[in-house]
Amino acid sequence: MTKDKGLRVKRPDPEWNPPGIIGDIVDPRIVMGHGAGGRKMHRLIKNLFVKHFGSPALRKLADAAILPACGAKMGPNGYSQGFPRRKAVAVPQKIAMTTDSYVVQPLFFPGGNIGKLAVCGTVNDLAVMGAKPRYVSLAFVIREGLEVVNLETICRSIAAECSKAAVQVVTGDTKVIERGESDELYVNTTGIGELLPGVQLGPEQVKPGDRIIINGPIGEHEAAIAVARGAYRFKGKAVSDCAALDGLILPLLAGSGIRLMRDPTRGGLATTLNEFAEATGLGFVIEEAALPISRHVHGVAELLGLSPLYMANEGKVVVVADKKVEEGLLAKMRGHRLGKQAASIGEVVKGREGVWLKTRLGSLRPLIMLEGEQLPRIC
Amino acid sequence: MTKDKGLRVKRPDPEWNPPGIIGDIVDPRIVMGHGAGGRKMHRLIKNLFVKHFGSPALRKLADAAILPACGAKMGPNGYSQGFPRRKAVAVPQKIAMTTDSYVVQPLFFPGGNIGKLAVCGTVNDLAVMGAKPRYVSLAFVIREGLEVVNLETICRSIAAECSKAAVQVVTGDTKVIERGESDELYVNTTGIGELLPGVQLGPEQVKPGDRIIINGPIGEHEAAIAVARGAYRFKGKAVSDCAALDGLILPLLAGSGIRLMRDPTRGGLATTLNEFAEATGLGFVIEEAALPISRHVHGVAELLGLSPLYMANEGKVVVVADKKVEEGLLAKMRGHRLGKQAASIGEVVKGREGVWLKTRLGSLRPLIMLEGEQLPRIC
Repeated sequence: MTKDKGLRVKRPDPEWNPPGIIGDIVDPRIVMGHGAGGRKMHRLIKNLFVKHFGSPALRKLADAAILPACGAKMGPNGYSQGFPRRKAVAVPQKIAMTTDSYVVQPLFFPGGNIGKLAVCGTVNDLAVMGAKPRYVSLAFVIREGLEVVNLETICRSIAAECSKAAVQVVTGDTKVIERGESDELYVNTTGIGELLPGVQLGPEQVKPGDRIIINGPIGEHEAAIAVARGAYRFKGKAVSDCAALDGLILPLLAGSGIRLMRDPTRGGLATTLNEFAEATGLGFVIEEAALPISRHVHGVAELLGLSPLYMANEGKVVVVADKKVEEGLLAKMRGHRLGKQAASIGEVVKGREGVWLKTRLGSLRPLIMLEGEQLPRIC
Repeated sequence: MTKDKGLRVKRPDPEWNPPGIIGDIVDPRIVMGHGAGGRKMHRLIKNLFVKHFGSPALRKLADAAILPACGAKMGPNGYSQGFPRRKAVAVPQKIAMTTDSYVVQPLFFPGGNIGKLAVCGTVNDLAVMGAKPRYVSLAFVIREGLEVVNLETICRSIAAECSKAAVQVVTGDTKVIERGESDELYVNTTGIGELLPGVQLGPEQVKPGDRIIINGPIGEHEAAIAVARGAYRFKGKAVSDCAALDGLILPLLAGSGIRLMRDPTRGGLATTLNEFAEATGLGFVIEEAALPISRHVHGVAELLGLSPLYMANEGKVVVVADKKVEEGLLAKMRGHRLGKQAASIGEVVKGREGVWLKTRLGSLRPLIMLEGEQLPRIC
């Protein structure tokens, strides 16, 4: 890299770290698969990022970090230290923080653009942790040559999504890099949310017998991006499901029996369930016949040799909930614009770790985490 | 961009926004100068970002947004609503949030690397607002081909700087983009800090007669990057001043008479003072003879046709303070490793708006905000 230029590059001592072998990261160089949500990315995160930045919040590898409110020191009663004994007044104690950079190509696609995607992704990462989104920061890295009108369209989308979710853009940054082959824009949104009182979500809450619910058909974002890249001539409409789910998710939470939620983005439903399986040590069995998948997504997936189970979503949430509340949750979700096709797709089991697909023929097929990507740069 | 591919690109209605003319952004496309910290960038921010995302916090265009703690509703007495009348116990009310993306080239340079730069920049943006840094998020956009050992070295630097500043990396994100001509890595760090109690900083605090103080010599970061790019053969050492200033700044704040602070990064000291002048409506006069500039930086600046006044710093803070505390502040700063060459460089005046350099010859020269960049991709 810089060594050609006579620079004293700080290189790690080769003793402790033979090039190319860090933990079980076997690639000496970063490849596309390291950003694809699969096993390669998980190895990179664990062997590099968690190793060096192992704060308790980061170690949980959740969609957002749950943090004590700044300055608040928690007393044993869950109230801030020094807080008087009158328990009626609860001091807000926890915030959620999440970050995502977006590198999607093309910048505009049916159903959204990189700006809408960024806000929705951040809002969803907070909402699935049980947090009401409040503030976002917005950082642009722009390739020289981007048309200012396109940037403004993206800004309009950001503003519209923020307004819907009652989120404020409170701080930002702009960097410009040299002209490249195509229009490029990388957007980082980092969000802060307020943890709703009484919410108890996490892998430790999940029990065998819990049901797995999703709010609608899978794979639509990745299908839309594939079609938007223009390599395939489809007659049908491919529209991304890109949407902010706070309005669907947050009202479900009050006294709900919901154990765990996640938005199945890169790597799709199967990867999210694998993360659940790893975090809980339990088995997740889903039924092929119950999975909502549109004919269009089936078609795109077949053509590209992908499985909809691994295709990215940007407006979906996987909910693990107590079986007792299954019907009530489904009814509530179906009453919302973004949950009309909500379906109960499987259950949590004991004694059979990992993720399993019960096929239409009745057999049980393991759904492992893929090694690398399906399509690159889908978000 | 995407229009060639038969995609329905959402384009703004040409009526409301003739291409290329948004407010007084006269460029139809983004150019390097839009990211350089000068007048072009300020126009882009005001005419595009503030226009669309005009939250009260964003409008202040400060280094970090000051926000009410999530969930806290402020009562008229500055305590949270419903908080009992015993004033002895203050509830933490405000957090600071800041974001920056780093695109520096080369990734490693004398005095630091992109990881150290990112953490220091974020810590400094919080500290100059009077906030103690607490949490950061970390998002990588990596070009395929980056050596994993280099990424690990960068991670080590991030971890080391976070540890020094007692900041936790609590959440992160990784994206990979296609291989390019050079090793590339873009890092976003977004930080949350806790506003120190009793701190009152802001342009509205500044009064004529206040002194302008800086903690050391200017231009060192930009000089180091210029030399690291290898186009020039210098004998001398060019080392970036890249450093986290929380340890220097935060102890100065208690009952201090400090009115306003900022770290003069892109655009340098002159740009920061122009921002101060614009926000306060006052004049800022600095004395050429009092400015700490190393011979080395003078040399690099002359060779490149730059002015050290506009060259970027990554370990400097400009402090505007009551004249009464000037000597005390200088003494305290000089007692710290990062303030040994602290100097009082000028004063705030009334009746002469803008920024002025009192030359060694005694004349007064205006220091305007530059249109575009000096060097691109210095941070």
